[in-house]
Amino acid sequence: MDRRSFLRTSALGGSAAAATTLAAPAYAQGKRTLTMVTSWGRGLAGVFDAAQRVADSINAMTDGSLTVDVKASGELVGAFEVFDAVTSGQADMYHAADYYFGNQHPGYFYFTSVPFGMTAQELANWYYHGEGQGFHDELGEIFGLKSFLAGNTGAQAGGWFRKEINGPEDFNGLKFRMPGMGGEVIGKMGASVQNLPGAEVYQALASGAIDGTEWIGPWADEKAGFQEITKFYYTAGMHEPGAGLTLATNLDVFNELTPTQQKIIEIASGECHQWNLAQFLNNNGSALQRLQSGGVKVLEFPDTVWDAMGVAAKETKDQYNGDEIYDRLRASYESSMAASSGWIVRSESAYRDQRDRVAG
Amino acid sequence: MDRRSFLRTSALGGSAAAATTLAAPAYAQGKRTLTMVTSWGRGLAGVFDAAQRVADSINAMTDGSLTVDVKASGELVGAFEVFDAVTSGQADMYHAADYYFGNQHPGYFYFTSVPFGMTAQELANWYYHGEGQGFHDELGEIFGLKSFLAGNTGAQAGGWFRKEINGPEDFNGLKFRMPGMGGEVIGKMGASVQNLPGAEVYQALASGAIDGTEWIGPWADEKAGFQEITKFYYTAGMHEPGAGLTLATNLDVFNELTPTQQKIIEIASGECHQWNLAQFLNNNGSALQRLQSGGVKVLEFPDTVWDAMGVAAKETKDQYNGDEIYDRLRASYESSMAASSGWIVRSESAYRDQRDRVAG
Repeated sequence: MDRRSFLRTSALGGSAAAATTLAAPAYAQGKRTLTMVTSWGRGLAGVFDAAQRVADSINAMTDGSLTVDVKASGELVGAFEVFDAVTSGQADMYHAADYYFGNQHPGYFYFTSVPFGMTAQELANWYYHGEGQGFHDELGEIFGLKSFLAGNTGAQAGGWFRKEINGPEDFNGLKFRMPGMGGEVIGKMGASVQNLPGAEVYQALASGAIDGTEWIGPWADEKAGFQEITKFYYTAGMHEPGAGLTLATNLDVFNELTPTQQKIIEIASGECHQWNLAQFLNNNGSALQRLQSGGVKVLEFPDTVWDAMGVAAKETKDQYNGDEIYDRLRASYESSMAASSGWIVRSESAYRDQRDRVAG
Repeated sequence: MDRRSFLRTSALGGSAAAATTLAAPAYAQGKRTLTMVTSWGRGLAGVFDAAQRVADSINAMTDGSLTVDVKASGELVGAFEVFDAVTSGQADMYHAADYYFGNQHPGYFYFTSVPFGMTAQELANWYYHGEGQGFHDELGEIFGLKSFLAGNTGAQAGGWFRKEINGPEDFNGLKFRMPGMGGEVIGKMGASVQNLPGAEVYQALASGAIDGTEWIGPWADEKAGFQEITKFYYTAGMHEPGAGLTLATNLDVFNELTPTQQKIIEIASGECHQWNLAQFLNNNGSALQRLQSGGVKVLEFPDTVWDAMGVAAKETKDQYNGDEIYDRLRASYESSMAASSGWIVRSESAYRDQRDRVAG
């Protein structure tokens, strides 16, 4: 499927056509306010922090010429409406996880995470020194966006369950919150999948509307309070091994900015990708210890579950095959992942094993 | 030992006193050129790239108010003279690996790498969200520097040898290039350790002045040409599991800059830490394949070598104990490393093992 035919057949592709028709906000004395809508509840640990970080960096480095005004989900538009808000020109930028917009184009899944996909470091390798940024730009030209990675959660936890998972059959009929392709995977395993924004998950779990949820990892999960409701916590998961967050600016708005302002948005985003990843990973260790002390049972899925997930993940990724961009993007991603991993396993992983063995 | 007594007893500590005495360069029409001296030969893969990247970012984001002029090693001062050049005010900034300056204060080893120390991600966790940046600042106040991490090589290869290493006794009498604490470790194992700048290593190896060398990893090592001389390549090493590079600005110069310029230097450095790490790791996989195709024998040290390195590494780190800053810094670093690793092993490492098992 070429780009045009994909747009014709995409339910929401129509928003792309509207991207260039709205007037840009007026300038006043060379100063400009950019409205950033986000998929995050105000103050949501890690993810809202990333949006605020990149906004603060842009504000500080542009010396008053740009002021990014960060909106939480629901303040201007809902968590999953930010893509349409920015492509239509209703807002200037969004900060979100691009896999929320896999219905716009399945290539967007890959800029957050795909099942059995890249770790955060592998994603950075592909994005900044392989073809990743180029594919993000190629999709952006279709939808009227200039996108940069601007945050990463690291490898996400498998999630919270009311009972122990002993085999793939335990996913059958399970009402579970999981967005992106990961949700499609457990759907294929029989789960009833919910894609709720972060701000709504706790209430859904508490009310019994869902049986379980993944969110991010120990630090953000503990702040969300899931340990108050469920006690079985799976630390490793297949669904988001290094979930990238994106800052996307309306392409017309971006093109109106000066080269200096554009460079500041680019570098602030890149810095935020690392800063946010380090934030999650720095806080997860101590949070995991607190959760365990508080009675949470920390577990890993049995191999039979991983095997079933592997089969379903391949089916999930294959079902989008045939779209020309998707096929090129996926091939590039998988080739880069294999190359990155080939070195990492012989260097950092081998070192880590020896460090644990020798230094305890 | 408190800071003052450390300075009195440090052979090179006298340079700190000179830091504030030299006049700052003159301004011209609000524009200023900052001279950056580096420890890198011009164009040296990865490391010179990092210096150039951070300079380019600063230049582009300050819109002409700052111009960073990057000097290769030897163009203004030698590779290991950059610290004194900046603390004395002869140059405005340096880009280097801070473990070259462990003789100024042993805390500086930790901002590059220490044996059996942090991976690049663990270093970022500690630096940006733990106490790392604070310790860098504390040392900077003594020596008259404002330092930021601004590059990382990732886990470095164990290095190049003329013959296979079958046990720790094979290090006895070996003339080997290895800087930092790693060099001290193999020195304790009997090696004759050379600390040569990168630009001089190839010639030393070719002439037989050294028997072997570590440099960085497959990509940079291949460009250096070590495979033309030696054929035994050890991919994992204990000496630099995630070597940070530093951009340090003379503290008086930094304090004269506007808050906007200061923020730009900070964010440009942080972005470069990630950009450079991704550069090394993206390129290492394919370079390793080329080296293997070209007849290089890729190996790992036997456990007996790792065990001997573990004993010598502990002795090496312990010998600096008693300096008040060093003791606090080391305790902070080791505590942060344990916490980071505790989560990573249960999440990303467990995921990686399953990905390799399931997806092959």
